[in-house]
Amino acid sequence: MKYNYIVLLTDFGYQDNFIGVMEGMIYKTNPHVKIINLTHNITPQNVFQAAFLLEHSFPYFPDNTLFLNVVDPGVGTDRDIIILKAGKKIFIAPDNGLLSFIQIAKKDIYKLIIPNKYIDSNISNSFHGRDIFSPIAGAISKGIDLKKISIKTDKIITIKKPEVSIKKNKIIGEVVYIDNFGNLITNINKNIFFNFVSLKDTYKIKIKNNKIKKISNNYIQEKGYGALFNSFNLLEIFSPNDNASYMLKAGIHEEVSVYI
Amino acid sequence: MKYNYIVLLTDFGYQDNFIGVMEGMIYKTNPHVKIINLTHNITPQNVFQAAFLLEHSFPYFPDNTLFLNVVDPGVGTDRDIIILKAGKKIFIAPDNGLLSFIQIAKKDIYKLIIPNKYIDSNISNSFHGRDIFSPIAGAISKGIDLKKISIKTDKIITIKKPEVSIKKNKIIGEVVYIDNFGNLITNINKNIFFNFVSLKDTYKIKIKNNKIKKISNNYIQEKGYGALFNSFNLLEIFSPNDNASYMLKAGIHEEVSVYI
Amino acid sequence: MKYNYIVLLTDFGYQDNFIGVMEGMIYKTNPHVKIINLTHNITPQNVFQAAFLLEHSFPYFPDNTLFLNVVDPGVGTDRDIIILKAGKKIFIAPDNGLLSFIQIAKKDIYKLIIPNKYIDSNISNSFHGRDIFSPIAGAISKGIDLKKISIKTDKIITIKKPEVSIKKNKIIGEVVYIDNFGNLITNINKNIFFNFVSLKDTYKIKIKNNKIKKISNNYIQEKGYGALFNSFNLLEIFSPNDNASYMLKAGIHEEVSVYI
Repeated sequence: MKYNYIVLLTDFGYQDNFIGVMEGMIYKTNPHVKIINLTHNITPQNVFQAAFLLEHSFPYFPDNTLFLNVVDPGVGTDRDIIILKAGKKIFIAPDNGLLSFIQIAKKDIYKLIIPNKYIDSNISNSFHGRDIFSPIAGAISKGIDLKKISIKTDKIITIKKPEVSIKKNKIIGEVVYIDNFGNLITNINKNIFFNFVSLKDTYKIKIKNNKIKKISNNYIQEKGYGALFNSFNLLEIFSPNDNASYMLKAGIHEEVSVYI
Repeated sequence: MKYNYIVLLTDFGYQDNFIGVMEGMIYKTNPHVKIINLTHNITPQNVFQAAFLLEHSFPYFPDNTLFLNVVDPGVGTDRDIIILKAGKKIFIAPDNGLLSFIQIAKKDIYKLIIPNKYIDSNISNSFHGRDIFSPIAGAISKGIDLKKISIKTDKIITIKKPEVSIKKNKIIGEVVYIDNFGNLITNINKNIFFNFVSLKDTYKIKIKNNKIKKISNNYIQEKGYGALFNSFNLLEIFSPNDNASYMLKAGIHEEVSVYI
Repeated sequence: MKYNYIVLLTDFGYQDNFIGVMEGMIYKTNPHVKIINLTHNITPQNVFQAAFLLEHSFPYFPDNTLFLNVVDPGVGTDRDIIILKAGKKIFIAPDNGLLSFIQIAKKDIYKLIIPNKYIDSNISNSFHGRDIFSPIAGAISKGIDLKKISIKTDKIITIKKPEVSIKKNKIIGEVVYIDNFGNLITNINKNIFFNFVSLKDTYKIKIKNNKIKKISNNYIQEKGYGALFNSFNLLEIFSPNDNASYMLKAGIHEEVSVYI
């Protein structure tokens, strides 16, 4: 199978030459692929954050997309590199849990064999994005047989999301991601919420002594703080025309609870 | 008409997965289009800033470019989505004034009809960039008939620029934009300036008790502060090899005046 | 010769419309080229930083790549614009030293003639990236004869790197670049180091009273601070899972020495 798009997700930031150099190495191998930058501003070494954004991104890309994910605190160690084939999409990442949230039923998982003929023998210790990941992504996008560069496996490292605690009259979740606008995104999804809160219930959503009494449909009708189900289908706390994270001094892991 | 380029302008920043996901959704609809990122660092919800940068950008793109602009504090409300066709360029934006400064004589303006067959029925409240704007931009770039997805209108929301006050012996303007270098860009354009200041006049440009006595041709010949007409044809205050906004503690709306 | 890729390197940042507009102007001239953004976050006016990143980037791009480099404190003055042809790659930059570290034996150097027929006559003083560099890059990428727009030269401005001081029992270098992770990259390269330190020697790497006793192969095995040879083949000081620059309060020019 060939892949027409390569989507890059890293914690390399936009300050250095790292991303540009990866693109150069990809085009050296496959001049015809289209490269899309998902984001490179993952907090350094934050594998969970990358896994979370990847989960909420991959369904929105065309078939025949390759996702190249390099958040790699273990670069230079003997950690494995994983290739996960799921339907018409394929994912490459270091074996550190980054692919944990790809919820596709049928998956084939491979471990990359290093060295192989697509990788130059002169590999740096600190930039496998350039020396391994990019040429391999380029080669896979051209349709090479995965058996020639990898072996099947079923053991990969997985990470877990913080679980929502469901009690008799309340559920307790937490902030798992904060977006560019300062909106606080929790681990409480629509199903959990509406299994707990029936249509006739009155409820309160609580964060740091602030109580929110309804779910909004947009960001502008509320004073104080508001809550809505966002595009990830997760409960999100916002401050209209303002930065809720800053206003509430609330960060990742801040408790958000729902009471009947 | 088909559009070969889609230019993205948003306040989504580069931290989240929002831009990458929009690109994915565009390519799902039209795999052949080229996507250009104008900027995504518009100050959150700052419609004026987006309109200002769009005004000073669109003339520099090829014909058959579609401009997709999503600075959208009203997302999830019943605000309209506008399609503005002007010559061989086309603009899409929420109806909030973002397209106010497109100075092209002949314009056709349309309101998007939602739902239509190019939009998935499952629309989130918080991310129309993904669920509406991107698939519509993809469809329009492929050349679909606008009549099938929109109705003609002539009522759209417009915003205004701060006006320059012209008195007998002075003109008073203000800072309307600050660029990456900290240069202070005012609303005083070349025409206004040279209608007021004749070639034989001596004049002073004043900002916060600093007086500048001539217009420079570059950023390096001045000590203290300098002024030049920038690439937008607007009067710009700079500090050579330094950040004028920081040095002067001057922000948006800071008064800049010209005396004879 | 035609060029399939144009790589952009500037200090324009990602806040304004500058980069998008340059891409528009390039596509106006050559709709078929692929544009790659190396980085636009060079510290404003820092020619050394741009030259350093370019040195460590250009080998990783395909043949037939054009590198367009605009860190240009002299914009609007009569500084020259240089075109450097080296093998199957070509480089454009203001004549300020930005191309000093392109270590390719056979180079042909040209000065751009302005005006020429590829540049619109209406040139701004402040944005040659839009008005000169982009249309010229587009034209060169299409394969125009360089003789029609430039004259050969051998006088260009060069800048130098800080030198490593080599004494009897120590070498003294300094930090020359700090990356997105806060890693401190020095001017001590692998050759200098291993000419000084033989395999049987014990040695200490010293930065601000911290002593590091070995070269690591990765970022995770060390407590305190570590050192490795990075992907530029330069000695790099790091803090495992942390930002060494911040932790050590060490910036550019901080002394790093090696003792036997």
